[in-house]
Amino acid sequence: MDVASLPWVPVAGCRAPTVWRERDGIGVLDQTLLPYERATRHLSSVDQVAEAIRVMRVRGAPLIGATAAYGVAIAMTVDAGDAALDAAVALLGGTRPTAVNLHWALERMAGRLRPLPVADRAVVAWAEAEAIADDDAALCAAIGRHGLPVLRRLAERRGGPVRVLTHCNAGWLATCGIGTALAPVFTAVADGVPVEVVVSETRPRNQGLLTAWELREAGVPHTLVADNGAGFLLATGAVDVVITGADRIAANGDAANKVGTYLKALAAHAAGVPFHIAAPSSTLDLACPDGTAIPIEDRGPDEVCTVRGLDATGRVAEVRLAPAGTRTANPAFDVTPAHLVSGYITERGVLGAGALADVFGRSGR
Amino acid sequence: MDVASLPWVPVAGCRAPTVWRERDGIGVLDQTLLPYERATRHLSSVDQVAEAIRVMRVRGAPLIGATAAYGVAIAMTVDAGDAALDAAVALLGGTRPTAVNLHWALERMAGRLRPLPVADRAVVAWAEAEAIADDDAALCAAIGRHGLPVLRRLAERRGGPVRVLTHCNAGWLATCGIGTALAPVFTAVADGVPVEVVVSETRPRNQGLLTAWELREAGVPHTLVADNGAGFLLATGAVDVVITGADRIAANGDAANKVGTYLKALAAHAAGVPFHIAAPSSTLDLACPDGTAIPIEDRGPDEVCTVRGLDATGRVAEVRLAPAGTRTANPAFDVTPAHLVSGYITERGVLGAGALADVFGRSGR
Repeated sequence: MDVASLPWVPVAGCRAPTVWRERDGIGVLDQTLLPYERATRHLSSVDQVAEAIRVMRVRGAPLIGATAAYGVAIAMTVDAGDAALDAAVALLGGTRPTAVNLHWALERMAGRLRPLPVADRAVVAWAEAEAIADDDAALCAAIGRHGLPVLRRLAERRGGPVRVLTHCNAGWLATCGIGTALAPVFTAVADGVPVEVVVSETRPRNQGLLTAWELREAGVPHTLVADNGAGFLLATGAVDVVITGADRIAANGDAANKVGTYLKALAAHAAGVPFHIAAPSSTLDLACPDGTAIPIEDRGPDEVCTVRGLDATGRVAEVRLAPAGTRTANPAFDVTPAHLVSGYITERGVLGAGALADVFGRSGR
Repeated sequence: MDVASLPWVPVAGCRAPTVWRERDGIGVLDQTLLPYERATRHLSSVDQVAEAIRVMRVRGAPLIGATAAYGVAIAMTVDAGDAALDAAVALLGGTRPTAVNLHWALERMAGRLRPLPVADRAVVAWAEAEAIADDDAALCAAIGRHGLPVLRRLAERRGGPVRVLTHCNAGWLATCGIGTALAPVFTAVADGVPVEVVVSETRPRNQGLLTAWELREAGVPHTLVADNGAGFLLATGAVDVVITGADRIAANGDAANKVGTYLKALAAHAAGVPFHIAAPSSTLDLACPDGTAIPIEDRGPDEVCTVRGLDATGRVAEVRLAPAGTRTANPAFDVTPAHLVSGYITERGVLGAGALADVFGRSGR
């Protein structure tokens, strides 16, 4: 993977430079340093892969799934026995609780490998991990295709750029392709539809800055706003549509996504602005009846009490906002109830909540 | 004023060390350096007072009003003629557009001074500014008294600490007394009612850190949360009541307050949690029919693209989050519609939106 050529220009169907196979392991783009430094990291053990997911060197539900799949392949290269397979799945599955793509990918890997002779598992594991990543790139492209008419209609109705509000980062950095929430944006821009994106900062981890970086490098006009500003912008007609990704969608359509998504959904609903979730079917958890069953991760005080940026000399630096020992609540996700979601932009089309189980439950995914 | 004794312990009815008369001018606590450094600043000209309000060395609707009143007194000391009075009112009135207390205080000063002989104006101006500040301390105490039963009832119902979510800083730092939103909290704590406060960070200026500092120094248990977290906490039953201040309340009860307030009001409403606004009648603008008539200040990109904290050596430092030239939207306030407000905690009691004009319109304020 030619990471020297970063930033990647999103091309539908192509693999994004977020995770790739290397000799004796995998390479990942280290997102904890973005958008300030473009560093990659070689991961050569399942422990290193688990650490990278836990501390969010790789992040975004689809990318977490693919990276975990590669982690299983790394484990199988060392020891492909049943115990090693179970241990790898348990270790990787325990890194982050909310995104279901992680478990989906691990189940797909285990389901493919367990029936095989131990001697065959390593080779097949690498092929299956590559397939999961390639599939994700294809899913992103399909999400973009289905989201395109939504944005085109709104731009035509407005007679000007369609103004899309997004939260967190659900662009190519969060996937193996052109993103989920940003897939319709990149697809529309490539198709000549005028788009402007309102990017919410997404404290405490500021993934909105990743989104702003993606958009800046791709030449897409965008406006950065503190998370608090979204209500004002929605209430005053400055936004035509909200699109976010998701980390887990329950069978009834309730969707866990980055904390703060729910507040934007409430404000969009109050303003009569459509609120869409863009996600592949690997984010759907039909075993989960509704949002109350989705486990929500609390990531502790450090993220709330500190923030990272560039200091006066242009170096990456962290400043402390609140004293060590400050009590915090740091839920990493919240749940947007299905009744606030206008549509789910999936690889099979834009669906209503009631259609999710029908489309992806019966025919498989 | 003994600012060496900071932090001040809030005492109902007493003046807070936020603004005070000094020889040849006034002293203010410089809030741009808080909570990291406790510095005061001497202001000896009306231009310096205007600058202090504009860059938020003093902030909070009631404190802005009182400080502007002192600014008029400083101006009158130099030249008490009609032209100088008009110029001071125009300069100070143009510093910040949203908080109506500013205009209320300037009108009170001008109304008191204009009928007087020029030779008498300076002395009376200082007395009137002191009276405005003293009155504000009394208003805060009354708000605390009226808010106390609200918190006591909720604590009794819960059989444990009442959990109050607040946004921005509407504590003693924002007033000349014990605050507006925090007045019921300080009053309840002094009365033995167990209270815990959930403090939202309030990007982009992080005034939540001022609230956390006030509460820490006063020994009130509190939890800091990123602005995005409020929806999750409200939806999951972690908050019993929301109380915020306001910068301008329209005649129909629509209330402008620090940006992000509206999102919390939506989430409180959805969760069935009471949402109260605590404000003195000087925040009420009966000439403003509803929220659409309230001017909302945009404070530009610097606040969104940078953040201030302590660096690794413990010095106050600013880090840059997004490159210079990033387009931003930075509305400093948003409007919470009256139908989302459970009650207005005023110096005359806890009122419904329909009672505001009755209580404060007919009998004066």
